[in-house]
Amino acid sequence: MAEDDIKPRDKVQAQLKEVQELLHRHVLVESLVHRQDMPRHDLIEGLVHKQHVAELTRKLDELHPADIAYILEALPLDERRFLWELVKAERDGDILLEVSDAVRESLIETMAPEELKAAAGQLDADELADLAPDLPDAVMEDVYLSLDLEERAQLRAAMSYPEDAVGALMDFEMVTVRADMRLEVVLRYLRRFDELPDHTDQLFVVNRAEQLIGVLPFTALLISDVDKRVSEVMITDPFTLRPDDKAEDAATAFERYDLVSAPVVTSENRLMGRVTVADVVDYIREEAESELLNQAGLREEEDIFASVLDSVKNRWAWLAVNLVTAFVASRVIGVFEGSIEKLVALAALMPIVAGIGGNSGNQTITMIVRAMATGQVSGESGKRLLKKEMGVALINGVVWGGLLGALAWWLYGSAELGAVMTVATTLNLLLAASMGVVIPLTMQRFGRDPALGSSVLITACTDSGGFFIFLGLATLFLL
Amino acid sequence: MAEDDIKPRDKVQAQLKEVQELLHRHVLVESLVHRQDMPRHDLIEGLVHKQHVAELTRKLDELHPADIAYILEALPLDERRFLWELVKAERDGDILLEVSDAVRESLIETMAPEELKAAAGQLDADELADLAPDLPDAVMEDVYLSLDLEERAQLRAAMSYPEDAVGALMDFEMVTVRADMRLEVVLRYLRRFDELPDHTDQLFVVNRAEQLIGVLPFTALLISDVDKRVSEVMITDPFTLRPDDKAEDAATAFERYDLVSAPVVTSENRLMGRVTVADVVDYIREEAESELLNQAGLREEEDIFASVLDSVKNRWAWLAVNLVTAFVASRVIGVFEGSIEKLVALAALMPIVAGIGGNSGNQTITMIVRAMATGQVSGESGKRLLKKEMGVALINGVVWGGLLGALAWWLYGSAELGAVMTVATTLNLLLAASMGVVIPLTMQRFGRDPALGSSVLITACTDSGGFFIFLGLATLFLL
Repeated sequence: MAEDDIKPRDKVQAQLKEVQELLHRHVLVESLVHRQDMPRHDLIEGLVHKQHVAELTRKLDELHPADIAYILEALPLDERRFLWELVKAERDGDILLEVSDAVRESLIETMAPEELKAAAGQLDADELADLAPDLPDAVMEDVYLSLDLEERAQLRAAMSYPEDAVGALMDFEMVTVRADMRLEVVLRYLRRFDELPDHTDQLFVVNRAEQLIGVLPFTALLISDVDKRVSEVMITDPFTLRPDDKAEDAATAFERYDLVSAPVVTSENRLMGRVTVADVVDYIREEAESELLNQAGLREEEDIFASVLDSVKNRWAWLAVNLVTAFVASRVIGVFEGSIEKLVALAALMPIVAGIGGNSGNQTITMIVRAMATGQVSGESGKRLLKKEMGVALINGVVWGGLLGALAWWLYGSAELGAVMTVATTLNLLLAASMGVVIPLTMQRFGRDPALGSSVLITACTDSGGFFIFLGLATLFLL
Repeated sequence: MAEDDIKPRDKVQAQLKEVQELLHRHVLVESLVHRQDMPRHDLIEGLVHKQHVAELTRKLDELHPADIAYILEALPLDERRFLWELVKAERDGDILLEVSDAVRESLIETMAPEELKAAAGQLDADELADLAPDLPDAVMEDVYLSLDLEERAQLRAAMSYPEDAVGALMDFEMVTVRADMRLEVVLRYLRRFDELPDHTDQLFVVNRAEQLIGVLPFTALLISDVDKRVSEVMITDPFTLRPDDKAEDAATAFERYDLVSAPVVTSENRLMGRVTVADVVDYIREEAESELLNQAGLREEEDIFASVLDSVKNRWAWLAVNLVTAFVASRVIGVFEGSIEKLVALAALMPIVAGIGGNSGNQTITMIVRAMATGQVSGESGKRLLKKEMGVALINGVVWGGLLGALAWWLYGSAELGAVMTVATTLNLLLAASMGVVIPLTMQRFGRDPALGSSVLITACTDSGGFFIFLGLATLFLL
């Protein structure tokens, strides 16, 4: 009961804290031993140390692999490695599957080939496929040779699909029955299992050629008369996936049709495997994560305790892109240096024009990219959207541009400067709106992911464009 | 088989296209009737029109509510409303639950109170609670009065929790059994149901006081000897939620422990309801969505066919904030107008310093906010993170700042200007790194969501800060 009073987040965090305290006590003792250099105390300290380690090990044994993964991720490198040593070898595989990619690398680095082989040996073929890219080739070869023929085929199958395909999400743990079985026989058949695979909410009904002819949900099996045959109760047109379907589309289907598991079939309708909602939830989370990271210019998830150099490597690519676009914008300003020299107020006002264009353009492009991700934007609605966004930009230009113009007039006492400010802001907002629609549609036409770098591209347009429009208008009409 | 050859996304899209074609044929006929003004043709046109409508209605009847919702979202307002009229009244409720908030409003606007009452009348208490905020008060009152006492209590319970609490996610469709029942009796009891609730993967075991004492997963029920008692097979320490737990934490638990459903209990451990993975998947998707929208300065999801005015309203708040921060940055530049007049190169170079700081600061803040969201950043690791980020900033400052300094030297032939550029870039990167750590930690300390507006705040710091540092250094050392 006491534990039930703690909220779910707090439960794991309480465990994290407990482990941290045990670790710190351990570190304290260690540093005492090293610092005091008192040989007589060694024995006692050694005993205390052993006690702490035993306590930590016991604690770890009680925890769910996912919770251990969480704790490992929250610890700095040295503590993480120390804890990892204490984890029972037979749990290594499960935990490696749960930790983030960055942390996984940091753990695998510390393991000997033999330990890695043992860890990999406990995994199913589909899990092995997830881990494979991070394992040394020699280890993978040995593991592959230790598999039986069916598992080898499954591993090859799982590894042959790209990360964003259904084939990479699927597992091979499905229970199949025949259509002519009576439900009573099905129930008896199930009772022979020691354990059913996780997320088994339905049995797959196949014919002699292993083709899927229906599914039998447990909810149907449990409420139906046991004398009925599977064929009378099963769903004959279940939702199915193909291994080369996009994972994103599978996720949408799981969300839309509230699925727990879905069969994966070949083009000849032969049952290959299944996808479960657990895999889909993980996929959705990872995708959302990487979209946010990409928007901020991070290439991939970063272990928060990664070394400074690893972090620099993760971030340099987008910084470099940003530097190039900033340099271009700077050169646009350079062209108008003569104008700025004559009217220095331009230097103070130009970042406002560029900034509001960037913000507004990011709003437009985010909305379009979202709508495109759901497939709701086609060529025809593209034109309609462009018209609408231009309308929004025009209103914003008149309102905000007008306000900015008034401010510029008030600050610098020049109505003409105010007018140029208003017109330039409006034009840059219109540029932002049109680019916000055109960039993602063009990216898609060329088969690129419209989200990738969208923010950087639109900001590059509105910066250089904003400077050019504002300084150009000022040069034409004010000087 | 033919249909199986189409991918999941394409299936819905094919349906969308089909509906659109039917709609366009309908519009064509309508416009003919109106334009030609030929009374003799009226009868024929009327018949053709009726045929098209009948075809559309038939098509809609075949579709899953979620697919109809998708199609409605993808259609412009006029076509959406026309289609909505054709949907069978008894499906209105399910479809209203599936569409996005913005589209839901546009549909409810067109419905008479009686229609709304009928639609709401088909829903369960928890579904009604989701819809309630969008329904007129008078309609909700009538619907409430039409419920029985238990449903009223459930509705009140579901509506009493904030949107981001487990209480708002839970439903009340759980099947309970007693611990002393034999499994055979459980199986017989289940066979009396016409239907089991969606996502029933386990039965909840309660005592006479309706307190949860365990759960009986179907996978355990199906493999165990039917003579055993529930108490021998059930899991006695299941994962439970409280109605006031955070939805986000529940989502993390579902993801971490691969759950399909979880019981919700009161502080006295009395069973209240359950949360299913379908609700969790919807929640995760919506959260990811709104985080992305917030980052881009959109207040909420926008119906892509919303009117221009609605869009302006959705976007104005962040634009206003941006305008204020841009104005502040502009005033910082204003202070140094004298320096810029003397050395106009400063005007061209200053946006680069500000820009790279903004990009780098966004990288840092995104990473910290992500790490905080998983609860892995505590006060102590805050210091460690700050040190690491400062290290990254220093390296980037030396590398990129050095490059920029060299460029400035080459462009303007002044080694001093180059040196100022390098130092200013490095200092702004250090400012970006420290603000990227300090802002979210401070937001959290004051109980605010660290993600909200993080990008706007950091950019405001690096813009004003960048201009100040660069122009200040230039004024001190170059003039």
